[in-house]
Amino acid sequence: MRLILAEYGEAVELVEMPPWVRSEDLLALNPAGTVPVFVDETDGPIAGATVIAEYLAETRGSRVGESTLMPITPADRAEVRRLVSWFLDKLDDEVVGYLITEKVLKRLAPASNGGGSPDAAAIRAARSNIRYHLRYIGYLVTRRNCLAGRELTFADLAAAAELSCADYLGEVPWEEDATAKEWYARVKSRPSFREILADKVRGSLPATHYADLDF
Amino acid sequence: MRLILAEYGEAVELVEMPPWVRSEDLLALNPAGTVPVFVDETDGPIAGATVIAEYLAETRGSRVGESTLMPITPADRAEVRRLVSWFLDKLDDEVVGYLITEKVLKRLAPASNGGGSPDAAAIRAARSNIRYHLRYIGYLVTRRNCLAGRELTFADLAAAAELSCADYLGEVPWEEDATAKEWYARVKSRPSFREILADKVRGSLPATHYADLDF
Repeated sequence: MRLILAEYGEAVELVEMPPWVRSEDLLALNPAGTVPVFVDETDGPIAGATVIAEYLAETRGSRVGESTLMPITPADRAEVRRLVSWFLDKLDDEVVGYLITEKVLKRLAPASNGGGSPDAAAIRAARSNIRYHLRYIGYLVTRRNCLAGRELTFADLAAAAELSCADYLGEVPWEEDATAKEWYARVKSRPSFREILADKVRGSLPATHYADLDF
Repeated sequence: MRLILAEYGEAVELVEMPPWVRSEDLLALNPAGTVPVFVDETDGPIAGATVIAEYLAETRGSRVGESTLMPITPADRAEVRRLVSWFLDKLDDEVVGYLITEKVLKRLAPASNGGGSPDAAAIRAARSNIRYHLRYIGYLVTRRNCLAGRELTFADLAAAAELSCADYLGEVPWEEDATAKEWYARVKSRPSFREILADKVRGSLPATHYADLDF
């Protein structure tokens, strides 16, 4: 969401919600109780990552001329949506969700809300699974330049956002695929990425190369 | 998917894929190995329920004039997408996925692929969770007529499709919410639903009221 907002030049005030806290304010904005929620001044709350992305493309996309992050033809748009789901659902389920849960959330959450020591088996699964995801990214980039086609789209931002979480934790084996690494260096160099690279997670320093554009 | 295709008057040839079989043909159409996949004569494979829905709205929506199943304004479209995700993801995770796995798939699948006796705790969880989903549907219909607004949209079809699976198994406590029941009777009476009501699952008869329009 932050990458899309920055690409579209949309300023927002960020509000952090710890995932282990039940918040009535959040439930009022999104009955599912999940983040992200984008609160538009006119239209009110828009809930869910892909829902917000489509909404921003429809309402802010024209600001940036042809580079709207969403292509024009139905088939190209379908490919972007397929890949966004691949990265936000599948890469997240198989890799990034495990890493964030085990290495970040279990440290920050109180014991009564799932805090505790990390599950080594889950981290091993993530380390194994991330390799084929990197190779898939390399395969797509070799054929297309960007993930869903010639131009940067939501698919690139979704993949880069997920990978940046793993990269912060030093968990991306970049040596696995040189093309994927070159693609990530390109996305990471965009002005929209600057804020992400300045992030600090409480109680956990980023990997030394995390913010390095020439890693 | 079948409801949307029928609403748009699109004829398709259906191909069934047992979820426990690894199919190279399916992987070639969708690297995630999941259904549904819609194979368009010109554009090729389009994978994933919400991806296909958006694609069909963009390519076939104009056939049916104003009742395209997807509203015009960005805020209304966002509400449809939020609810589609609510039903296909959340209602499926909390209710219908359990019922199908425990009561259907475990019976049909070989023991080596997850077949076996049903988990009573999972079925109990589904029976408990479905109640608040029915009340949420009733709440939405009371305020809006259809789930996402005045008109029928993908949100209604997503909810009705999920509920029809539970209803086949006799697992929808319709007495819980009269408004939800009235809404389902309306959706179920549409010509697009006819094929769904004629479905038979191998080795499992539908609940006696399943195809009854006045249940």
